[in-house]
Amino acid sequence: MKYDLIIIGAGPAGVAAAIYAKRSGLNILIIEKNMVGGLLNNINSIENYPGIKNISGPDLAFNMFEQLKNLNIKIQKEEVLDIKLEDNFKKVITNKDTYFTKYIILATGRATNKLNVLNADKFLHKGISYCAICDGNLYKDQEVCVVGGGDSAFQESLYLANICSKVTILIRKNKARAKKELLNRVKEIKNIEILYNSSIERLDGKDKLESVQLTNGNTIKCLALFVYIGFLPSLAFLDNLDIAMENNYLIVDNNYETSIEGIYAVGDNIKQQIYQIVTAASAGAVAATNVFNELKNPQK
Amino acid sequence: MKYDLIIIGAGPAGVAAAIYAKRSGLNILIIEKNMVGGLLNNINSIENYPGIKNISGPDLAFNMFEQLKNLNIKIQKEEVLDIKLEDNFKKVITNKDTYFTKYIILATGRATNKLNVLNADKFLHKGISYCAICDGNLYKDQEVCVVGGGDSAFQESLYLANICSKVTILIRKNKARAKKELLNRVKEIKNIEILYNSSIERLDGKDKLESVQLTNGNTIKCLALFVYIGFLPSLAFLDNLDIAMENNYLIVDNNYETSIEGIYAVGDNIKQQIYQIVTAASAGAVAATNVFNELKNPQK
Repeated sequence: MKYDLIIIGAGPAGVAAAIYAKRSGLNILIIEKNMVGGLLNNINSIENYPGIKNISGPDLAFNMFEQLKNLNIKIQKEEVLDIKLEDNFKKVITNKDTYFTKYIILATGRATNKLNVLNADKFLHKGISYCAICDGNLYKDQEVCVVGGGDSAFQESLYLANICSKVTILIRKNKARAKKELLNRVKEIKNIEILYNSSIERLDGKDKLESVQLTNGNTIKCLALFVYIGFLPSLAFLDNLDIAMENNYLIVDNNYETSIEGIYAVGDNIKQQIYQIVTAASAGAVAATNVFNELKNPQK
Repeated sequence: MKYDLIIIGAGPAGVAAAIYAKRSGLNILIIEKNMVGGLLNNINSIENYPGIKNISGPDLAFNMFEQLKNLNIKIQKEEVLDIKLEDNFKKVITNKDTYFTKYIILATGRATNKLNVLNADKFLHKGISYCAICDGNLYKDQEVCVVGGGDSAFQESLYLANICSKVTILIRKNKARAKKELLNRVKEIKNIEILYNSSIERLDGKDKLESVQLTNGNTIKCLALFVYIGFLPSLAFLDNLDIAMENNYLIVDNNYETSIEGIYAVGDNIKQQIYQIVTAASAGAVAATNVFNELKNPQK
């Protein structure tokens, strides 16, 4: 059995690609190692997806899952380990099976960067968290820290401030990268404190995190440290392919095709002006339509 | 009172631009001559907007209106007649007032040329469609017609041929305007038939479209007629401006800025690979963010 198109990843970009590809009559498969919705499942509240006033990330993810089911789109819950290029098709090798396809859309998203300081591993799940929505409630009425100066750090701080007694945001530089409205909102919240020029030297505690030691000599008491220090596209399975990347992101042309013919990429694993649900979804729709055109209406 | 940004048009592109601009803290105004949602209000059923399994166009438009209200975004129901460029700002002149702004996003959409034959109104959304990507899936394994002889008519026929059992292209003249390679491609597809010298006299059916009656006496059975007889971007109010266009569409750069500094354009009035709700919304979000960056964090 050979597919027209295999979509790897079922976040907003992969879901949109699947909707457009399936509705155009292509024979498709989605391979997703975790849950439909991808990073949506870690988002508390979404207010900027046009047409939906307010929705939780898991609810939007569930809606996408229902939409795929409604279109009879096949989803395999497997992890892609390798892609091999054959003469007229591509092989997608997962932890369970091998699939054959004419086209591939990579919609694998990106993972959060891990904190690389002394004792970060020791306190993982014992104070160190990469998901405020998952773990914030464990620190109800306690003091916590957030590391990072971008939108995510500030957004999650607002979330935590509603649960925890105090939130201290640790920013390495002398200013934050976060959007002004977010920065302003954070400044209005009385139990959030922002510390600039604050690099972490090490984490301290007996069995669990108890304090954060900064390189400037200050010690911040906190039972949890939430990490929001950037992202890395999830593309390790491409290591055997000679595919063009820049700073770990895939390079694509205007059609979202990578340097390898027949392999497209959309969403958070390519360079975008903004990394938003609606931009990822749009790219998925366009790429799927371009795959259809290549398959059914080749210009060359 | 001078606005940071005036958005002209409140279809999906304009709404998305407004959401992102307002949430970034800009002082904005939307001017829309008709209803929020724009062409959405003419769509019966939407199944390809990621995250919403099925919704009517008016319902999605209403959700967008609610989302704007929720964000306290100001909407003036007026028609823009002219734009004048001053030294450090722009004047937007409507049928009722004059507004001052630093930036403008044009999100005025485009109008479809309407089929002007007997019963065309009666069967609108009951067989008559202006969007194959939106509605083709409703006619899986059915016989459909396409009217038009240009690139769009031929491209959409290829799209439909992959879903429907038969596609008949009705062309008024004795030859097609479409690109030669497109024409050749269509000729290779066995379930597409091209009928030249075929003007439509009237549409027939009980409650829904059942057949198309041609002026040459022939009757073509079909459950749907897809109309591709041209589009015209809604930009007449720009006649006094020296703004770059190509084939009536605005030319924009990668940031969605037109040839006039500070005037951006998104949605159906610019050239896009596909004209979809999610692509228009994505462009609106990106353009608004670029305006924010220009205003609050200028790179130059």
